[in-house]
Amino acid sequence: MHGYADNREALLTRLRRIEGQIRGLQRMVEDDRYCIDVLTQIASASSALHGVAMSMLDDHVRHCVRDAIAQGPESADEKIDEAMQVIARMTKR
Amino acid sequence: MHGYADNREALLTRLRRIEGQIRGLQRMVEDDRYCIDVLTQIASASSALHGVAMSMLDDHVRHCVRDAIAQGPESADEKIDEAMQVIARMTKR
Amino acid sequence: MHGYADNREALLTRLRRIEGQIRGLQRMVEDDRYCIDVLTQIASASSALHGVAMSMLDDHVRHCVRDAIAQGPESADEKIDEAMQVIARMTKR
Amino acid sequence: MHGYADNREALLTRLRRIEGQIRGLQRMVEDDRYCIDVLTQIASASSALHGVAMSMLDDHVRHCVRDAIAQGPESADEKIDEAMQVIARMTKR
Repeated sequence: MHGYADNREALLTRLRRIEGQIRGLQRMVEDDRYCIDVLTQIASASSALHGVAMSMLDDHVRHCVRDAIAQGPESADEKIDEAMQVIARMTKR
Repeated sequence: MHGYADNREALLTRLRRIEGQIRGLQRMVEDDRYCIDVLTQIASASSALHGVAMSMLDDHVRHCVRDAIAQGPESADEKIDEAMQVIARMTKR
Repeated sequence: MHGYADNREALLTRLRRIEGQIRGLQRMVEDDRYCIDVLTQIASASSALHGVAMSMLDDHVRHCVRDAIAQGPESADEKIDEAMQVIARMTKR
Repeated sequence: MHGYADNREALLTRLRRIEGQIRGLQRMVEDDRYCIDVLTQIASASSALHGVAMSMLDDHVRHCVRDAIAQGPESADEKIDEAMQVIARMTKR
């Protein structure tokens, strides 16, 4: 059981909506819709995906990292390294 | 016909692959996969989506904005405003 | 004379203010100020720097890229390549 | 004493170098240097600033957040809220 277990249904709903947005993007491209409208829709899907990542990271830090720290220094180091790597990837520019 | 017309099939292939990644994410969440693995997969989908946006913006500037500039100052101003707004949204932080 | 010539004084004022923010950050670190407060101040300087970049890019597209397109396809291609590379760098994640 | 205390000198060196980059940017604008060269230099300063933020966040999580979690649930909740807010700001798009 991971940190996001309590939010699983909400996460799945958000991911299904993003899947719908990606299919909508395919229809826009097939219908030769105006580039700027497609780019606006991509930005919206991208922002929704980022929201899911932030929610997941929040649950991870609040549960998994926290439990690891409570269990002692060794498990803590490993979990913190791992979390920092994923945060670095999410903030990369 | 918009700037991305020549790349339509390539764009659709990339969007279908991203749709597959989003469905893969749903399965990971249903299977209660480890948060960090899910986050790594989200980062990969997010990066692929950003790649589609950059490719689309490239075509837009090379074709639509360029044609508008060739047609005269008024259509140019409008297209440049529009492109700058979408770039601002894509670089927002 | 480049695209930003008309905005030079405004750009210099913004850059001097950012320099002040960076010196402020050094004082915060010397005074051992709380990490979260330092990070908030870094985010503010980073956002101001991004604003200068967007303003500069806007002038560049409106003047330099536009003039190159008006001058013919060869100079246009080169300028558009260059602009797209810098936009890719600014939106990288 | 905060998390970055052990790295204070290294952080100050990095911030002084960034201050130098911002002053260099002012000279480039005064000398009417080419927009793309200025934008490339802005990207470099921006990336250096982001590096300082990531280093600071790393120290914060490894020391301050960790100590708070070790001290009990109440101080932990507060520190985790605070850290997640700053991470959300750093990853905002």
